[in-house]
Amino acid sequence: MLKLNNFSKKYRIYYEDTDSGGVVYYANYLKFYERARTDFLREINISQTKLSNEENLVFVVKRCEINYLKPAKLDDLIEVFVEIKEIKPASIKMSQKIMIDEKTLSQLEVEIVCVDKDIFRPKKIPQKLQEILKK
Amino acid sequence: MLKLNNFSKKYRIYYEDTDSGGVVYYANYLKFYERARTDFLREINISQTKLSNEENLVFVVKRCEINYLKPAKLDDLIEVFVEIKEIKPASIKMSQKIMIDEKTLSQLEVEIVCVDKDIFRPKKIPQKLQEILKK
Amino acid sequence: MLKLNNFSKKYRIYYEDTDSGGVVYYANYLKFYERARTDFLREINISQTKLSNEENLVFVVKRCEINYLKPAKLDDLIEVFVEIKEIKPASIKMSQKIMIDEKTLSQLEVEIVCVDKDIFRPKKIPQKLQEILKK
Amino acid sequence: MLKLNNFSKKYRIYYEDTDSGGVVYYANYLKFYERARTDFLREINISQTKLSNEENLVFVVKRCEINYLKPAKLDDLIEVFVEIKEIKPASIKMSQKIMIDEKTLSQLEVEIVCVDKDIFRPKKIPQKLQEILKK
Repeated sequence: MLKLNNFSKKYRIYYEDTDSGGVVYYANYLKFYERARTDFLREINISQTKLSNEENLVFVVKRCEINYLKPAKLDDLIEVFVEIKEIKPASIKMSQKIMIDEKTLSQLEVEIVCVDKDIFRPKKIPQKLQEILKK
Repeated sequence: MLKLNNFSKKYRIYYEDTDSGGVVYYANYLKFYERARTDFLREINISQTKLSNEENLVFVVKRCEINYLKPAKLDDLIEVFVEIKEIKPASIKMSQKIMIDEKTLSQLEVEIVCVDKDIFRPKKIPQKLQEILKK
Repeated sequence: MLKLNNFSKKYRIYYEDTDSGGVVYYANYLKFYERARTDFLREINISQTKLSNEENLVFVVKRCEINYLKPAKLDDLIEVFVEIKEIKPASIKMSQKIMIDEKTLSQLEVEIVCVDKDIFRPKKIPQKLQEILKK
Repeated sequence: MLKLNNFSKKYRIYYEDTDSGGVVYYANYLKFYERARTDFLREINISQTKLSNEENLVFVVKRCEINYLKPAKLDDLIEVFVEIKEIKPASIKMSQKIMIDEKTLSQLEVEIVCVDKDIFRPKKIPQKLQEILKK
């Protein structure tokens, strides 16, 4: 298993993210995981807007495995990590986690697939992207 | 001011709608208001998907005035009302409210505009739709 | 593996559920899965509001495994299924899926844990609930 | 009308914020407005978590008037402004706007009320907070 990189970014928890249980609503962790993947791609100069407009390609999630260990709360500043595990011709596997200081709140294994925007069928990740991702 | 109709539909409050204050998050009331507008249009046989695909038109909100009177809570079954106030060539004004039994929780004045999907410029509401709405 | 029951309910897709990729945003499927679990519990007379207020207990998700097979779109009427797989003293495993007609759009394996509302530590599911769930 | 201050902060638009119309979903602008109000309070050392835990007080929105001028899109970096217009014993009126560079996308007039967390009745804003806000 390759450790191709290790990107992380911090995000704040607001009222919108919580539910009446007093903690972050379980589906909303997936929003933070996706923000970090997007910001990681932006960091290495891959624009999803450009990819969609110019190549008619979007990345969609095919599979997720999430573990919830500890809850995040209002005003918390969480750190979301992204690590590429495997790059296949039309898909990418990543490991992600959410931490506060030394505590891990949640872990995610995710597989994203490159698809044609109109028919949602898998398409090869453009060569140039493959190269950027593998660096 | 015409009272052209008075549609209502009931929706359930789930965890996703609440925040850690213990009540429905203030932005989420706009989701329920929009669901009711969409279900009202569906009821009179106006499909927004069809409008978008066949005529390249979408309805967008131009202006909202919301009053929050009482909070909705987890498990509540709210009733959302839609009343058309005015139909102009490219826009519609509606009054909406959210009730539980005899209590009004929130009121909304909203103006929606018919726009070209690609450039977001106002376009005349198709004649056939105007007629359905005015019936 | 017991097949203790098989509950399903239909939910409509609105604008709020979609993203600019033109389909339902990947985190929002978890909202529909949770609505179905809540409506299943309501159906068998288990109120989460009452459980929280009277027993200080909430159910939280510990683990999710989601497969995304086909996308749901604006105006779709999806059907969400709930099946209990296993009941342990403080947790429940369920299998869920989302269908439109004969097509499966998504599958979920989920484990929920009964916890004390204030300290988020596992607590035994009350005996009365255990009995209702096992019927 | 006092111009007591003028705070602003930038936020990124992600997939979660958009809808299948290709732009930010109309209710989600209220999320960004609320993030900016919260970050403004944090900036002047007012913690809503502390206010809730120690004084049993929460700020809730009583009234909103939103104008939507131009849509925000995926990957946009919006700037959200907060300006206090009036401080009353139990409520605050603010003017907010969302901009990208020199373009105004949306404007908001909002009134928030300080309420007792359990009964949702207005309560005087604590003297110390009043003083911080008026500085």
